[in-house]
Amino acid sequence: MKNLLVIKISGNIIDDEKALNTFLNDFASIDTPKILIHGGGKLATELSSKLGIETNLVNGRRITDSATIQVVTMTYAGWINKSITSSLQAKNCNAIGLSGADVQLLPAVKRPAGEIDYGFVGDILNEQVNSEFLKLLLSAGITPIIAPITCDGTGQLLNVNADTVAQSVAVALSKSYSTHLIYCFEKNGLLSDVADDTSVIPELNTLTAEKLKADGVISKGMTPKVDNALMAIKSGVNKVVIGHAVQITKIAKGEKGYGTYITG
Amino acid sequence: MKNLLVIKISGNIIDDEKALNTFLNDFASIDTPKILIHGGGKLATELSSKLGIETNLVNGRRITDSATIQVVTMTYAGWINKSITSSLQAKNCNAIGLSGADVQLLPAVKRPAGEIDYGFVGDILNEQVNSEFLKLLLSAGITPIIAPITCDGTGQLLNVNADTVAQSVAVALSKSYSTHLIYCFEKNGLLSDVADDTSVIPELNTLTAEKLKADGVISKGMTPKVDNALMAIKSGVNKVVIGHAVQITKIAKGEKGYGTYITG
Repeated sequence: MKNLLVIKISGNIIDDEKALNTFLNDFASIDTPKILIHGGGKLATELSSKLGIETNLVNGRRITDSATIQVVTMTYAGWINKSITSSLQAKNCNAIGLSGADVQLLPAVKRPAGEIDYGFVGDILNEQVNSEFLKLLLSAGITPIIAPITCDGTGQLLNVNADTVAQSVAVALSKSYSTHLIYCFEKNGLLSDVADDTSVIPELNTLTAEKLKADGVISKGMTPKVDNALMAIKSGVNKVVIGHAVQITKIAKGEKGYGTYITG
Repeated sequence: MKNLLVIKISGNIIDDEKALNTFLNDFASIDTPKILIHGGGKLATELSSKLGIETNLVNGRRITDSATIQVVTMTYAGWINKSITSSLQAKNCNAIGLSGADVQLLPAVKRPAGEIDYGFVGDILNEQVNSEFLKLLLSAGITPIIAPITCDGTGQLLNVNADTVAQSVAVALSKSYSTHLIYCFEKNGLLSDVADDTSVIPELNTLTAEKLKADGVISKGMTPKVDNALMAIKSGVNKVVIGHAVQITKIAKGEKGYGTYITG
């Protein structure tokens, strides 16, 4: 099977213009067929604030009311997605910006209100991911850039977690490609001591993850990242790494000593 | 050659939720391969106002500074594009939302500052329109929905006139399809008396257009529509009609008595 890279870039990198530009230069230089999934960064929160829309986060997840789904669609699928796409075009990477709503890339259902009502938040129907369209693009030398916005069968736009999007896309394509999923962010990997950038945990499996969660080493925004990484490796993705955005070319080449390898 | 419809829907329809829904139902029901280009409507102006960004229009065209290009990218390529796309998906039309920046669909240059500096406004390089990608989508049964945002070779996002986008796309595809370009808006066609909805001018050519411009019958937002319609028919598009959005299925079928036919 051919190789494929599925790379998720976190909001903290997107918020830093210089870091984002460095990352996009590196990303564009990678020859392997690749897909980029991006998070949202602070822009949605800033825009909401300017518009007088209250931002509510529960466990790091945004409560998405009707005003907020408009704001996140504008920022994620509009400004961020098209800024990244146009920037990559200028770097000789033939990018296409997409949301999960386009060609039913990521069919989803609105999450039922339980103890918490997340509002217009979606759960992706993994069996229905439109991997055929992504394969069509990849075979034409086109690089998909995916924003974490999708819709349900009624046409309702929904906010989805970008870490989960990366996992769903990587798993769906692992049937056709030898797939390498990389979660890129502003740290060198999963750290045993968040204050010590050299304390990278080189390997993580389900058992050690449970222990680290109990110890509070894995918490907040790291939890969905780790959970999605573990789910990906268990569901057929060949290699999953959590690492620093500035190390993307080294991680993509499989060089050892960079990031946290997820071993399932 | 196979038939293709290129349909532009104006901002006034987009601003009217009920009218837009009716239009999208009709659009989705059309069997002929089709492309939709949408304008922006009032949302960008409203959002700018809420954000304290001044809106400057000269001859109906938006002066686009750096704050404004962000607003129009968010509203046109984000909210409006993805709302239309998700709505069409729910109506069994396999839509994909795109901007001109994606896969270099509409390469453009920033308009040089002349008497008026329009700012981040683009002029499309018609010879470089990526019609091959649109043909790939159409042959896969996918319906492109195009927002009037693109970029130049440096990755700078640019605001482009949606009437011009429709013309450029229709002309580029007229080499491969028998192409029918339809400008849909909230009137029955080009009216000789703007207060009389029955005063539709059934046919328009360059000579009559010049006369109507001199008489002030064609003015403001109608001018780029008429100019682009004339340019399209002269550049190889088979049929060009300006008509009412509620008559789209009749116009698409070529039924007589609806809209203004452009005869070059």
